[in-house]
Amino acid sequence: MHPLEKMFRPRSIAVVGASGDPEKLGGRTLLHLKELGYQGRIYPINVSATEVQGLPAWPSVADLPETPDSALILLPAKHVAKAIDDCAAKGVKHVQVLSSGFAEEGGEGVAMQAALAEQARAHGIRLTGPNCLGSISPPDGFFGTFSSLLATAKPPPGSVGVATQSGAYGSHIYAVAGFRGIGISRAIATGNEVDIDVAEAIDYLVEDPGTRVICASLEGCSNGEGLRRALLKAAASRKPVIIMKVGSTEVGAAAAATHTGSLAGEDRVIDAVFRECGALRVSSIEEMLDVAYVCSIAPLPPVASAGIVSVSGGIGVLMADACIEAGLSVPPLATEALDAVRAVQPMAGGRNPIDTTAQLAGRLHVIETISQSMMGGADLGAIFFYLAHLGRDLRRFPKIEGAFLALRRNQPDRTVVAVMTHIDEVRQQLEAQGVPVFEDPTRAVRAVAGASGLRRLQTEAQPIPDVEQAEPLGLGIANEAQAKALIAAAGLPVLPEHACTTADDAAAVADRLGYPVVMKILSDDIPHKTEIGGVLLNVVDAGAVRSGFATLMNRARSARPDAKLDGVLVAPMMRGGVETIIGTLTDPVFGPMVMFGLGGVAVELFRDVAFASAPLMPERAERLIDASRGATLLKGWRGGPSLDRAALVDALCALSRFAAAHRGEIDSVEVNPFLVRESGACALDALIAFKPGHGTGKPT
Amino acid sequence: MHPLEKMFRPRSIAVVGASGDPEKLGGRTLLHLKELGYQGRIYPINVSATEVQGLPAWPSVADLPETPDSALILLPAKHVAKAIDDCAAKGVKHVQVLSSGFAEEGGEGVAMQAALAEQARAHGIRLTGPNCLGSISPPDGFFGTFSSLLATAKPPPGSVGVATQSGAYGSHIYAVAGFRGIGISRAIATGNEVDIDVAEAIDYLVEDPGTRVICASLEGCSNGEGLRRALLKAAASRKPVIIMKVGSTEVGAAAAATHTGSLAGEDRVIDAVFRECGALRVSSIEEMLDVAYVCSIAPLPPVASAGIVSVSGGIGVLMADACIEAGLSVPPLATEALDAVRAVQPMAGGRNPIDTTAQLAGRLHVIETISQSMMGGADLGAIFFYLAHLGRDLRRFPKIEGAFLALRRNQPDRTVVAVMTHIDEVRQQLEAQGVPVFEDPTRAVRAVAGASGLRRLQTEAQPIPDVEQAEPLGLGIANEAQAKALIAAAGLPVLPEHACTTADDAAAVADRLGYPVVMKILSDDIPHKTEIGGVLLNVVDAGAVRSGFATLMNRARSARPDAKLDGVLVAPMMRGGVETIIGTLTDPVFGPMVMFGLGGVAVELFRDVAFASAPLMPERAERLIDASRGATLLKGWRGGPSLDRAALVDALCALSRFAAAHRGEIDSVEVNPFLVRESGACALDALIAFKPGHGTGKPT
Repeated sequence: MHPLEKMFRPRSIAVVGASGDPEKLGGRTLLHLKELGYQGRIYPINVSATEVQGLPAWPSVADLPETPDSALILLPAKHVAKAIDDCAAKGVKHVQVLSSGFAEEGGEGVAMQAALAEQARAHGIRLTGPNCLGSISPPDGFFGTFSSLLATAKPPPGSVGVATQSGAYGSHIYAVAGFRGIGISRAIATGNEVDIDVAEAIDYLVEDPGTRVICASLEGCSNGEGLRRALLKAAASRKPVIIMKVGSTEVGAAAAATHTGSLAGEDRVIDAVFRECGALRVSSIEEMLDVAYVCSIAPLPPVASAGIVSVSGGIGVLMADACIEAGLSVPPLATEALDAVRAVQPMAGGRNPIDTTAQLAGRLHVIETISQSMMGGADLGAIFFYLAHLGRDLRRFPKIEGAFLALRRNQPDRTVVAVMTHIDEVRQQLEAQGVPVFEDPTRAVRAVAGASGLRRLQTEAQPIPDVEQAEPLGLGIANEAQAKALIAAAGLPVLPEHACTTADDAAAVADRLGYPVVMKILSDDIPHKTEIGGVLLNVVDAGAVRSGFATLMNRARSARPDAKLDGVLVAPMMRGGVETIIGTLTDPVFGPMVMFGLGGVAVELFRDVAFASAPLMPERAERLIDASRGATLLKGWRGGPSLDRAALVDALCALSRFAAAHRGEIDSVEVNPFLVRESGACALDALIAFKPGHGTGKPT
Repeated sequence: MHPLEKMFRPRSIAVVGASGDPEKLGGRTLLHLKELGYQGRIYPINVSATEVQGLPAWPSVADLPETPDSALILLPAKHVAKAIDDCAAKGVKHVQVLSSGFAEEGGEGVAMQAALAEQARAHGIRLTGPNCLGSISPPDGFFGTFSSLLATAKPPPGSVGVATQSGAYGSHIYAVAGFRGIGISRAIATGNEVDIDVAEAIDYLVEDPGTRVICASLEGCSNGEGLRRALLKAAASRKPVIIMKVGSTEVGAAAAATHTGSLAGEDRVIDAVFRECGALRVSSIEEMLDVAYVCSIAPLPPVASAGIVSVSGGIGVLMADACIEAGLSVPPLATEALDAVRAVQPMAGGRNPIDTTAQLAGRLHVIETISQSMMGGADLGAIFFYLAHLGRDLRRFPKIEGAFLALRRNQPDRTVVAVMTHIDEVRQQLEAQGVPVFEDPTRAVRAVAGASGLRRLQTEAQPIPDVEQAEPLGLGIANEAQAKALIAAAGLPVLPEHACTTADDAAAVADRLGYPVVMKILSDDIPHKTEIGGVLLNVVDAGAVRSGFATLMNRARSARPDAKLDGVLVAPMMRGGVETIIGTLTDPVFGPMVMFGLGGVAVELFRDVAFASAPLMPERAERLIDASRGATLLKGWRGGPSLDRAALVDALCALSRFAAAHRGEIDSVEVNPFLVRESGACALDALIAFKPGHGTGKPT
């Protein structure tokens, strides 16, 4: 049985710290268990009372007449350890510590939390919290939480599961879901996560037959592998995961670090991991619930395209714009389909969006023909109907309900959405037919685009392959020549070049290579050569090579007097092609990652760089390339030739395997520029940084 | 009196085409006038009835006992002309034609619409429509419209004015506003706009003392000057205008063109014009209403910074991220302010966002000290309170109302926002104190950021100066040398270069200029030289110049056998600096516009180009530069020197004056690249396109 099953659906539960005063957390939690429909046995634990809120109470869990499935602990922090021991003595294996006063308060709370973690492990107890808001399972009437929401609202039962670290975040999500009529299957807040974390909660919700869609929110993450595994499991079972990770900006990340003490990695790495594992990242709670709403009611669009039928030309255009911006194409209908539309609605304008004009209101019977014709006239993953205020009109609305029903029956795998002002009764009737209803046209489009993206991500998701650790390189630092030799050995194409220690030597090499050549200073101590003028391009003859040798050595000596200079590299000058940057880095949570971007100012000025987990297989390398605008340049720019994308894919795969195989030693690799040419590609420069304490070279 | 006054607030009104059947548009409109609170005199006009819906009816406006302030015409299109004549005969000067069947249906509708426009002009009648939804003025109980919304809901009176072309768009806006409790002052849909357009409606709403905020939506625009004038008038009177223009994508623009027949200019020109005129462009109706809501209740934030107080660390971080992404800084509080916060709430974490922890719920009295300390600890334009579910709790909420009141009183020009789940009663109480209330944290932030942006735009807005038309240039086409001579005469720095007709000539020029040099083919028939290999960079000596001359001529001859070749340009090779593109274009609606962007792939690959109306004064030129990422490069890149921004500003101003002074002749100018250097700047290439039919050169 999944360890979370007893936290969501216990047959019996102890409330340690139960109180008669509903203003106190232990009183409020007991009240929620008593009053909101829970059918299991409730055991209030209170050191001094024999009865609490009308229920018989016990001084300790150890005294209970049975071993409860789970326990909620709401005592002050300093009493929690004793309560855990009592639970262990009684054989309780599933405990939620709702008490605060642990690591989040700093000081001795940190040590108390570490002790709590160790205590649970020693007893074989699975533990949620501390400092968590508890769990709910509305279909079971189970509300094991002190959330203040429950004083005024009870989230309705449904199929959306919620897993968050933050309790307020989670209760905000299920509160708003409830107000909108979106039902909840289970929700849990994992708090300080000494044991159960959001990843494990997601894992439970994937297995839970009562959950159809998962909403998750993270503030930090320490177990990257666990999170990847849970998300991939969801994708494999086609259960949508819509996820937020706060701290996406520097200010936010700093605040999150203060708040949770977790490491802030590169936010785009998080993006990449979520995407690769088939989860949709969103940036607001409202967007999360909009997508969850669509996914919980309707099929996810099988293709990223949309049809739009609107009683208003203006709103039709608004929705077409919103589709394009959100990544849904709006293909024009085939002429025959358009003829069929015009046969029943002669004044209908456009080819998609179709503007039926407001006169549709008087001829609602034609909507079925229009919608069927649209679906026949293009491969549409979704179809939107903008119907103004028809959803408020119980006299008129039933006239078109049949059209929606027919469309859903004939196109069971397409997403059909109604956009209109509406009353709850109309909305509920449509939802029962699998038709989501929105008031705002743009939100409708963005939600469906999210569902469409989710479907694509689920299809593409695949585990990151394991890579055996290679023999240690035994280097603590690598100069440019060594770095290039290493990546060449790893299978990357590298420009032939030669380390020269004298001007004569350089001239002889250049003569052999042919002109023009490139010359670069060679020194372990000067990783960023361009900054000191340490690169000469387009050197045209032997004379220029000789004087260039002196120039480079002099510049290096004056800019970095302490640097050990190893001479000058001479290489053929490459022309044409596009300069890209490929590299790897080590994320503190998710391990080795590959990056790709355009060279020049694109990476830094436009942040046009994409990440993926290492190692890459060709399919994911292709997607990594497509995630950057650089992909456009590779197709040929302004009539130029298309470039050797296959060579780039090979290089990315090889580099990623290299980084993954040496993950113990290598911190990052930067191949910049990596020139992609009409035929072939080559690394023009390379830099490898090793992890501290590795290799035999100088300490870094 | 403003011509729209009588369309919004008539003391008497004729309904031409009034019907006893409320299913018909003429029946429904009459019903709305009769039943929803209108206090003026209503005259049903019906050719055959003496009484309609219990009111005495007349066969024609001409027969009425008085001249009504305005008339609504709801007859079939073919009868509208007669009704207009009747109105004219009676002296009615303000008419709204709600009938459809005009240009929007094509065919003879187009001619009928042209005739209608002419007829109104001839009679001196101001006309809204045809094909419009009419106007409403909820504070007057006036609903001169057949909108189906009114069957179930009546927009409440308030201070938000709405001006749209599309009727459905407008009624969607005021419907949703009403559901949210946002009251409407006036709303009008202008339909096919033969006379009154959205710009004139905005002009009215600026003058209207009952309107505090204006929401507008356009599908097309034919009167660019009128729109600029109305928006600038709003900005000058500090009345916020929140505006949408659909057709922002290619697909949307094509659909809008089908729908309205209007020209689709460059969407970023629209962006620029709205911004320059102080209006905030938004992309969804919900966003429009969110910003309007804040502006209608609270002061606009005077600085673009925010403080965040949250009972949840996670939501605080979410909001900090949202602030940064929306352009609001989140400055850390000064230490003394932080100490003051901790003095009353010791467990509070962070420096902004402040995480009070959920324990705030039990100590609500400290919120006043916390908020006052925050405001004292940084220059904050706005302060957000995330309070979980406190807004649903009538027992607890009143405990903090005083804190909001005190904050509003002590900081009357700052925006104070509550974010929480809530009931209407709590929301209304706070709104009455000038505090907007949101449920979704991200929407709250984006709305306030919109209000903040609006305030900045209003402050910056200024009219585009008039420029006297210059003497005609008398050119129909200009080769590169002529184009450079023209922009040099206009005051732009241009590289010294020389047209050479022989290889010897070129070598002699190059010797004089010094090496290396740049060589370019010179021909009127080859505007895009790089595409045919018509540019040689870095030519190092006289021999190379001679062979380069032959190379260029041969390439040009083989690529464009018909081209007339004027020789080769020789110029010094410029190194260093940043290549930018500056140029002008002629927008079909808004006239001459200036553009600025980075050279290379940035403009096309990243669409990193910004527009502004010509002519520019230095202040707007600075903003134009800052609107592109190129601004970052000018500050010095990777430790490089900062570049001569002043020279760029001068060039942009000079080029914009040139384009504006020759707006009759010149269609576009492209100076690409325009090299901005450490000291000075210079145009390396230039291209001028003339309007068809202008000048003495070849026809284009």
